[in-house]
Amino acid sequence: MRRSIATVCLSGTLEEKLEAIASARFDAVEIFENDFINYHGTAADVRRLCHDLGLGIDLYQPFRDFEGVSDAQFRRNLDRVERKFDIMEALGAPQLLVCSSCAPDAIADDARSAAQLYELAERAARRNITIGFEALAWSRHIRHYQHAWKIVKEANHPHLGILLDSFHILSLGDDPAAIADIPGDKIAFLQLADAPYKVMDVLQWSRHFRCFPGQGNFDLVTFLEKVLLAGYTGPLSLEVFNDHFRAAPTRPTAIDAYRSLLYLEEAVERRLAAPGDDVLLNQAREAAAARVELFSPPRIPALDGLAFIEFAVDTESERALAQVLGALGFRRAGEHRSKAVTLYRQGDIDIILNAEPGSFARSHFMQHGPSICALGIATEDSLRALNRATAFGCPRFEGRIGPNELKIPAIRAPDGSLIYFVPSTQGSKRLFEIDFLLEDETASAPSPTDLQAVDHIAQGLPQLRQDAWTLFYRAILGGEPGESMDLVDPYGLISTRGVATADRKLRFVLDVSDSDTTATARTITQLAGASVHHVSFSCADIFATVERLRANGVSFIPVSPNYYDDLPTRFVLDDALVARMAALGILYDATAEGEYFHVYTQVFAERFFFEIVQRNGAYDGYGAANAPARMMAHLRTNR
Amino acid sequence: MRRSIATVCLSGTLEEKLEAIASARFDAVEIFENDFINYHGTAADVRRLCHDLGLGIDLYQPFRDFEGVSDAQFRRNLDRVERKFDIMEALGAPQLLVCSSCAPDAIADDARSAAQLYELAERAARRNITIGFEALAWSRHIRHYQHAWKIVKEANHPHLGILLDSFHILSLGDDPAAIADIPGDKIAFLQLADAPYKVMDVLQWSRHFRCFPGQGNFDLVTFLEKVLLAGYTGPLSLEVFNDHFRAAPTRPTAIDAYRSLLYLEEAVERRLAAPGDDVLLNQAREAAAARVELFSPPRIPALDGLAFIEFAVDTESERALAQVLGALGFRRAGEHRSKAVTLYRQGDIDIILNAEPGSFARSHFMQHGPSICALGIATEDSLRALNRATAFGCPRFEGRIGPNELKIPAIRAPDGSLIYFVPSTQGSKRLFEIDFLLEDETASAPSPTDLQAVDHIAQGLPQLRQDAWTLFYRAILGGEPGESMDLVDPYGLISTRGVATADRKLRFVLDVSDSDTTATARTITQLAGASVHHVSFSCADIFATVERLRANGVSFIPVSPNYYDDLPTRFVLDDALVARMAALGILYDATAEGEYFHVYTQVFAERFFFEIVQRNGAYDGYGAANAPARMMAHLRTNR
Repeated sequence: MRRSIATVCLSGTLEEKLEAIASARFDAVEIFENDFINYHGTAADVRRLCHDLGLGIDLYQPFRDFEGVSDAQFRRNLDRVERKFDIMEALGAPQLLVCSSCAPDAIADDARSAAQLYELAERAARRNITIGFEALAWSRHIRHYQHAWKIVKEANHPHLGILLDSFHILSLGDDPAAIADIPGDKIAFLQLADAPYKVMDVLQWSRHFRCFPGQGNFDLVTFLEKVLLAGYTGPLSLEVFNDHFRAAPTRPTAIDAYRSLLYLEEAVERRLAAPGDDVLLNQAREAAAARVELFSPPRIPALDGLAFIEFAVDTESERALAQVLGALGFRRAGEHRSKAVTLYRQGDIDIILNAEPGSFARSHFMQHGPSICALGIATEDSLRALNRATAFGCPRFEGRIGPNELKIPAIRAPDGSLIYFVPSTQGSKRLFEIDFLLEDETASAPSPTDLQAVDHIAQGLPQLRQDAWTLFYRAILGGEPGESMDLVDPYGLISTRGVATADRKLRFVLDVSDSDTTATARTITQLAGASVHHVSFSCADIFATVERLRANGVSFIPVSPNYYDDLPTRFVLDDALVARMAALGILYDATAEGEYFHVYTQVFAERFFFEIVQRNGAYDGYGAANAPARMMAHLRTNR
Repeated sequence: MRRSIATVCLSGTLEEKLEAIASARFDAVEIFENDFINYHGTAADVRRLCHDLGLGIDLYQPFRDFEGVSDAQFRRNLDRVERKFDIMEALGAPQLLVCSSCAPDAIADDARSAAQLYELAERAARRNITIGFEALAWSRHIRHYQHAWKIVKEANHPHLGILLDSFHILSLGDDPAAIADIPGDKIAFLQLADAPYKVMDVLQWSRHFRCFPGQGNFDLVTFLEKVLLAGYTGPLSLEVFNDHFRAAPTRPTAIDAYRSLLYLEEAVERRLAAPGDDVLLNQAREAAAARVELFSPPRIPALDGLAFIEFAVDTESERALAQVLGALGFRRAGEHRSKAVTLYRQGDIDIILNAEPGSFARSHFMQHGPSICALGIATEDSLRALNRATAFGCPRFEGRIGPNELKIPAIRAPDGSLIYFVPSTQGSKRLFEIDFLLEDETASAPSPTDLQAVDHIAQGLPQLRQDAWTLFYRAILGGEPGESMDLVDPYGLISTRGVATADRKLRFVLDVSDSDTTATARTITQLAGASVHHVSFSCADIFATVERLRANGVSFIPVSPNYYDDLPTRFVLDDALVARMAALGILYDATAEGEYFHVYTQVFAERFFFEIVQRNGAYDGYGAANAPARMMAHLRTNR
């Protein structure tokens, strides 16, 4: 389908916006009027600019308070709209968005509104323009799409159709089912926006918190399915008002925007292809799928957790980090055959320290200091995973390969770090057997500290990037976001959101600091764009593990004794258990589903730290209630 | 009255919070439990710390989900609360806040809740502790203070009272009138918070958007009046959850917090002293006023607009700025008798350029570059204005005075700049006659460019300071805030709010940039803490004035022709008038009350600019609709 975006979605001047939209591969734009009004050039200039960029102009918007007005005002409105038609002709824009009236004196009279829209469509027809009539969720009288459709049907003019905006419909909780009954050629245009669920004034919600499909909570799959069942074949156009996107760098936002359409299209394509019990519906879906071309990338292959974590280091930080890993019970398992790369192993965890000059890791180190530069994800089909990511616009990465070394497909994550797709079909250890000189096999007996696997990867992100990463993990890896929560740092709030695959083999935690003085913000500053701020390892008996780690000299954060005094007032816990936790500095959380025991190490090089966790039962969180204790402790020991 | 604040209001560690609270002159604190739980020390340590700082601990909070529970849960809750009583004994905290239950399984049974609270009060009495029962606005069953009071009355225990929180009561739109009927000694405690009006989920509103009295929209004067009429004489305690305050520097927030109580107390004191028609009410007010001591500073004297604006300059920037002022039609009117200070005049506007080495202006210049370092405000009683500001905790400033020079009372504004109170009783020009060698009087004929007075001063503030300045202008100068609005900069949103005195002789505009890439944010960065980013001058005939200014070589921002094409679609305007505006680059706004014509100059030294305005009728805004045009133009011409 044709992919379009409203200029209001992005930050910058009109030139910057159009340029970013074109390079993100959109087909067309909606020109948001304010962007044009403050543009220092003519409509012909904008038309030429778009033409040169290969962008169509599909819509000009918005035109407000047109219908439901007195006859006198109606005459003035017709004069007013003729001026807009002049601009649209010069732009070459074929359609005008007219939204239902918000004026306090708007008249509740459907026949009047229909007649006025008919007259408008007559005028538009003379200019070869069509009118898309949209029900604004907060307008004076016409708030629901069914109402707008009734009026459009009544007006019955070939140059008038209904314009559907997912936000206005889903924010009111309206059932989109009836959309399927609107004749497809009467749907003039389709605007798409997602949003997080919020109980708030719908206008403020709309103006500040919209986001791109896949970044919020709306069921856009069902919504778009109904629109396609109706027979709509026009553009899919994004219209998002978001405070963060207004301030974020323009190009990355445009790339996310485009990816969000692909994500939605794929989901709808699968919905249309899935046979159900209802034969008629199956036929309708088949017909809808045949009418339009939806994005259909390679499906997500089975993902089997993290194959490895790679740190970019120099000689000095390698020595220091190797010492920390040693204390954590990792053994030095081998050396790369041709590069300054070392492998550390414990349980199912493989950690690579990469100090190779001239490598990607080295340039990562130069930019970010010692930090995680790559994650390896084990998968049944690494090529399919790669091709899917590429189809979603992720840049591929090809590093230097030595003779007889394995080539592992890799892409760049949104922070520029790498994600390798490691074929697990060959046994995920194969990679190391080929590329590394492995040391004494007997040493691969279970480590006494008993760390078993990576539980999750936690990232500290700049204020504007949480949505982008959420979409990235959803689209590329099939993750699903959990609830967003606020964590209290002594110097401000941290917004956190987990994204995990359905089988929980991959878990990522996305942390954003609104304030620039929190521990998380300082880590982000130190990491300078690399994003992993802690790695969490699972174990089976955290008490035994932490005892050994403490004996090994691992430095954990101090926890206030007041924390342990309070714990029994929050949970039913055995006194002896609390005493053991207190003695070892282990934190605790529980839900109806299970328990979470965890400890945090001190921070390494002011950049990252490790967590040891034990999950009992089906506990599915990350100990958010204990984050304030962690942040206070990191604060105390890092200044 | 005793002034208290909850530790949750502020940013930082518990030590930092207590220290800031003490130095802001509070009498006492509420210990918010999370602050204690993550404190690395004992309750006795906190008690000692508070004692050494001269702070009482008036309350420990919150205790949740106590009442309306099953018998089994009730027994567990009693065990739970005994542990809290242990902590409170060690803290020396005499009162526990118990809020109404939010648990989904809470039982709606007033008799049960009353009985359980009675038993709790019995336990508390043994420890010499009292219980303050609070109706949470979002609790399961007991949301309104009348309901909580019914239960407290029913329980009828001397160690149990109702705890009133202005947010919970006013956010639900409850009438506080019935508070006056509660016996004063049954009001256990009083928590005060203001908030901006928002249509949103009350829990989220409460957790993120509360602010200090005088910073929001709640009628706290009536609220506190009712509480005092009830006979309450206990502490006034602030409890504010605010994302910005959590991240803001601790000490300034504590100072604002204290000022907000003074502001509220004065307003209530005036309310109680104002005689009405209702004799009984008058008597009750008199009695209430006699029971408590409320802050009663010197009243605001009549303020007569801006007496002068002072720029800090060095020789180089003085020359450049003098040239700009010259082009704007200001004439060099005199030199200071003893200092490197020059006076420029036009209409009622006096501008001082201060390049005196060793002066306040010089140190301001060293910190902020060329910028406004002081404002002079004309007043009928400069000493009273000074004493009022001092009573509200504004630091006084005393500069060097030469022989026979006038001493003008001055205070420091929240950004460290100065506000002088210039006695207008002597004629506001007297100052210059004494301190300056004035040049040829005949040159004081009206300038041909006809700038008349300062219309307003616009400030660019760091993200967290808008509330503080609003309170400052309200408390010190009696300004009242207008509506908050969002302005669209190409790189993010600007939040703007005007604060003006009732007679509009003083108008300030407070601009905050959420993004750090907007033109406003860049100005703030350049100004490095000085805050004035533009000064607006009024004139009687803006067309004539701008023509002369353009002839003088003043450089105004370019406005897109599209702006003028659009203007007639928004307002009923004569084509010739629009053409004249377009020719001169004059922007336009109008409301039902009047019109606003204005132009902006280019930016001086990347720091500030000037606006020329003409108000027709009772237009009371600042042309917010045109801010995007201004910001786009400043962007285009400054990069």
